[in-house]
Amino acid sequence: MLQQINVEEKRLEDYRSIIGDSKMEEILALAAPLKGAKVLHVNATAFGGGVSEILYALVPLMRDVGLDAEWQILHGEDEFFNVTKSFHNALQGAEISLTEEAKEIFNRYGRLNAEALEGDYDFVLMHDPQTAAIRHYHGHEGGKHWIWRCHIDTSTPYPEVWNFLQPYLEIYDAGIFTLEQYVYGDLEFPVLALITPTIDPLSPKNRPQTLQESREIIRRFGIDTNRPLLVQVSRFDPWKDPLGVTDAYRMIKVQMPELQLALVGSMASDDPEGWDYYERTIRHAGEDYDVHILHNLHGVGNVEVNAFQNAADVVIQKSTREGFGMVVTEALWKGKPVIGGNVGGIPLQVIDGKTGYLVDNPLMCAERCYHLLQHPEESKAMGQAAQEHVRDNFLITEHLKNYLKLFTKLSAF
Amino acid sequence: MLQQINVEEKRLEDYRSIIGDSKMEEILALAAPLKGAKVLHVNATAFGGGVSEILYALVPLMRDVGLDAEWQILHGEDEFFNVTKSFHNALQGAEISLTEEAKEIFNRYGRLNAEALEGDYDFVLMHDPQTAAIRHYHGHEGGKHWIWRCHIDTSTPYPEVWNFLQPYLEIYDAGIFTLEQYVYGDLEFPVLALITPTIDPLSPKNRPQTLQESREIIRRFGIDTNRPLLVQVSRFDPWKDPLGVTDAYRMIKVQMPELQLALVGSMASDDPEGWDYYERTIRHAGEDYDVHILHNLHGVGNVEVNAFQNAADVVIQKSTREGFGMVVTEALWKGKPVIGGNVGGIPLQVIDGKTGYLVDNPLMCAERCYHLLQHPEESKAMGQAAQEHVRDNFLITEHLKNYLKLFTKLSAF
Repeated sequence: MLQQINVEEKRLEDYRSIIGDSKMEEILALAAPLKGAKVLHVNATAFGGGVSEILYALVPLMRDVGLDAEWQILHGEDEFFNVTKSFHNALQGAEISLTEEAKEIFNRYGRLNAEALEGDYDFVLMHDPQTAAIRHYHGHEGGKHWIWRCHIDTSTPYPEVWNFLQPYLEIYDAGIFTLEQYVYGDLEFPVLALITPTIDPLSPKNRPQTLQESREIIRRFGIDTNRPLLVQVSRFDPWKDPLGVTDAYRMIKVQMPELQLALVGSMASDDPEGWDYYERTIRHAGEDYDVHILHNLHGVGNVEVNAFQNAADVVIQKSTREGFGMVVTEALWKGKPVIGGNVGGIPLQVIDGKTGYLVDNPLMCAERCYHLLQHPEESKAMGQAAQEHVRDNFLITEHLKNYLKLFTKLSAF
Repeated sequence: MLQQINVEEKRLEDYRSIIGDSKMEEILALAAPLKGAKVLHVNATAFGGGVSEILYALVPLMRDVGLDAEWQILHGEDEFFNVTKSFHNALQGAEISLTEEAKEIFNRYGRLNAEALEGDYDFVLMHDPQTAAIRHYHGHEGGKHWIWRCHIDTSTPYPEVWNFLQPYLEIYDAGIFTLEQYVYGDLEFPVLALITPTIDPLSPKNRPQTLQESREIIRRFGIDTNRPLLVQVSRFDPWKDPLGVTDAYRMIKVQMPELQLALVGSMASDDPEGWDYYERTIRHAGEDYDVHILHNLHGVGNVEVNAFQNAADVVIQKSTREGFGMVVTEALWKGKPVIGGNVGGIPLQVIDGKTGYLVDNPLMCAERCYHLLQHPEESKAMGQAAQEHVRDNFLITEHLKNYLKLFTKLSAF
């Protein structure tokens, strides 16, 4: 048997005051005919990353509306995760060398996990490439409807890896992608659903904090809360462009010497590349201590990220490549306009001139930031529009609704 | 019972070719009358730091010469180690607030570990402040001779903490300190021994590497082995002055643009102060990528430290405060002259103008480094003197000899 993940109870009712009666009724109406349906989510890890954040909220909410939902994680050793990490990079466009050994490892763990999968489900949801081969090795038993859920940007995958995976994928009954352009080549599913990631407004990362609470928290990290603050929350890697953000900050600082920048990320102790780019970011900041570079090993966890986003004057997400960008959603939800790179899922969230600005380079980023800093009323109005945009589209309840719609559609087959 | 640490076997005979016949005979003659003596070492941790490095070599060598030696670590929870960490800082001079709660915690664990200590020993060695109270709570049973071994610089302790500990210390039969000036105030022991830390020439950190091996290893971290290299191996903290080392490097670089500097340290993931100073070091280096700043999370372990020391042109240890400085010993042993701060145990090792140079500031450090870089023959001769100085005084076999001498002296009481 695969490892079962226990989740806390959640009540949809607690979201009523956030999403309103009509959305509540819509969800409950969709759920009613699905009552008792057995649902299984399988992914690779219970910790870290957007997928597990979503499942911690989604699985209990499915249960609360009457579905019999479970979450299991697959079994893998280092050799397997090394292969799937390289596949992940390749699906995002990196050229890798796809060896026979890698294929063998991928298939061996696919078979092993397929054999370990027990029980009989109405809907089996396999998340991301790690799980892709399980359907093939498991056969038709055990699941009426098999769904593959892709959370990554596969718009320009490295073809050799995509071609290797495609036969495993096209035998699923449905595919879920974040954006239509992420369905590459001639891959087709009997049913295709486009569902974006979403955030849980009641999680520690998104739960309302008063401005005073947030300011108290960020002061502990050396921020002067009487001076303006730009924030970017992101891993330290080239695609998040922390160096470009620092350049933009510098351009504004000439006009506004009191400005501060916080680059907030998370570090894995087993990721040397991550360390290199973190160091590069610090070196680029040099001895300007108004640039604060912080990560989990400094004690920045979910509550602190929440505080930085909530206390920021402007939030930046200057990505040059982005699957969806849940940190953008988080910031918009806190009523902050976001200056975002015009890539991936960001334009779905940042409506240029309405919920923030889309930018292509550091100068543009600096100009937009400076404009918002100089026009606090406009910034505030934009922040309110931002929050409404998330309320309408990117809360976990919307995710639940879209899954229920997909299950309804599949049940009709 | 306290937790027993298992150590690998070691044979003194393997050191004969390093230390020579006469030292060998001296040790064996001292050991003969002590044959079968039961010895117990107790310290706080089996991992990290000079004390455990020493015990991993010393305990098996004591066994090899016929003593019945054991190593146990005491039991403690976070509350205890937080107190002893503050005591450690206070004994090195930091002002702390010594609360009744801290005293209570220290005493409670002292009693608890005293009760857990079982068996009957001829010599019980308690290492560092964490163990200090055990003698008091254990009473006289279980050990004929109780010895307290202090590995830290207690030359100017914070008096309140010293006064709290002194009654626990003065009931030991013997005290061991690194330097005479570390015995503070009116503390007296029936027997006082001065024994410096030492290194194990057969450990992975000190085992001979060919220059070619070392260069291959450090090239993996981006070092250009065709260009001169300065190395400092140290934690990133103000007392090791990595910023001053960088300043010295810059002064030389004006004359010698091809110069490189490697600052190699180790990081604990639960030490926010360590992270702050690491970041400060990187910021000070700025975007000069000839300054390499590396640590264990980059994959720098014992073998890599060995390689950096062995491949360096000059090794620096510009401490402004230093108990002894085992990294100085390690570098001298590799035939490198060391430019060291004129503090703590460094002048015992760095004989000015003979095994290296003692310096008081970055300019002096730069001048001495530049001189050695310009005079490779002189540097080589100094390195040979450095190695002989370590061979005579600071190898683990010397440590063994000094312990045996102390045991002999105590047995005569």
